[in-house]
Amino acid sequence: MKLARPLQHVIDSFQRLPGIGPKSAQRLAFYLLHVPQEELDSFASSLTNLRKNTVECSTCFNVSETDPCVVCSDPKRDKTIVCVVEQPIDILALEKMGSFHVVYHVLHGRIDPLNNVRPDDLRIGQLAKRITNSEYPIEEIVLALNPDMEGEATCMYIVKKLRAAGSPVRITRLAYGLPTGASIEFADEITLGRAMEGRREY
Amino acid sequence: MKLARPLQHVIDSFQRLPGIGPKSAQRLAFYLLHVPQEELDSFASSLTNLRKNTVECSTCFNVSETDPCVVCSDPKRDKTIVCVVEQPIDILALEKMGSFHVVYHVLHGRIDPLNNVRPDDLRIGQLAKRITNSEYPIEEIVLALNPDMEGEATCMYIVKKLRAAGSPVRITRLAYGLPTGASIEFADEITLGRAMEGRREY
Repeated sequence: MKLARPLQHVIDSFQRLPGIGPKSAQRLAFYLLHVPQEELDSFASSLTNLRKNTVECSTCFNVSETDPCVVCSDPKRDKTIVCVVEQPIDILALEKMGSFHVVYHVLHGRIDPLNNVRPDDLRIGQLAKRITNSEYPIEEIVLALNPDMEGEATCMYIVKKLRAAGSPVRITRLAYGLPTGASIEFADEITLGRAMEGRREY
Repeated sequence: MKLARPLQHVIDSFQRLPGIGPKSAQRLAFYLLHVPQEELDSFASSLTNLRKNTVECSTCFNVSETDPCVVCSDPKRDKTIVCVVEQPIDILALEKMGSFHVVYHVLHGRIDPLNNVRPDDLRIGQLAKRITNSEYPIEEIVLALNPDMEGEATCMYIVKKLRAAGSPVRITRLAYGLPTGASIEFADEITLGRAMEGRREY
């Protein structure tokens, strides 16, 4: 039996999304059959408008409705500290801390030669320029990239690049160690090694 | 920090779907920022057209592009056996067997007083009528409802209803027992009880 084509189209659309397999896509599509037409229309228009009604902030390259974005135009932010992240979604997680009112710089990826992402594909050059041309003196760059191979290679590259340009800015990275709630019994050896290396005195 | 509204709309739309929590909705919305506009438009139109371009088959009440649906109009189907299911998605699972070429009847739910679903909300009356008025004599009704409280109460109701109408049709249900790959060690007592009750001789 072949499924009705309109149903199959919805299944196909969902299946293209990351983390949604054939079974979930089917379940979602059949669920939507019971949803009022207005809700389907509103879902549809949210999708068509997603890219049309957003821009990249020309300062921090975060996704935004306005340029500069709400963060860059917020007078209460400490603009001397720039936190560098891989993706806009990382900013969401950092903002949840609630206590760290700095500005951001979105690289839109990390150096990943296996997937053909080179330094020039990222907003690294723009970061260097931003440091030089900023109206506020930028004192610290906090590298908040994912603690994996590609993330660390990207950090190394940024540090080298900024130092080569003679920038005197302080460059830091997030601490590595045990996450809250972890148990030493189940921690992997790399995490434990880093936690030991970064141990602090009472 | 507030998210850009177009992004928040997409997150809200995804979050309304079953099984998609706030984190997954965020991940999907941020993913879609990187997708070409044509793909967003095609996703959007698949949603608006889902209900507009589908109908319920007037014979079996399955979702379909045409009335009668592809199953009901298929001359190779054994129309003397009608398999009754709760939802259109159940037909997908049954069709995967590949060896059971019968026709279906979709109830669109099951009797569930706690959620205010009464027998009249389902296509039970239409099933009785279908048996009486069918051009092919219907010989067997296979009740393929979910093996839980509501599913079984609905089966009981259908059996009573058809018998009260004096229908001589054979009414069966799917077998209950151990699913393939299950281990007796971890099977629950109800499943084991049913497997024992339905034991078969070699």
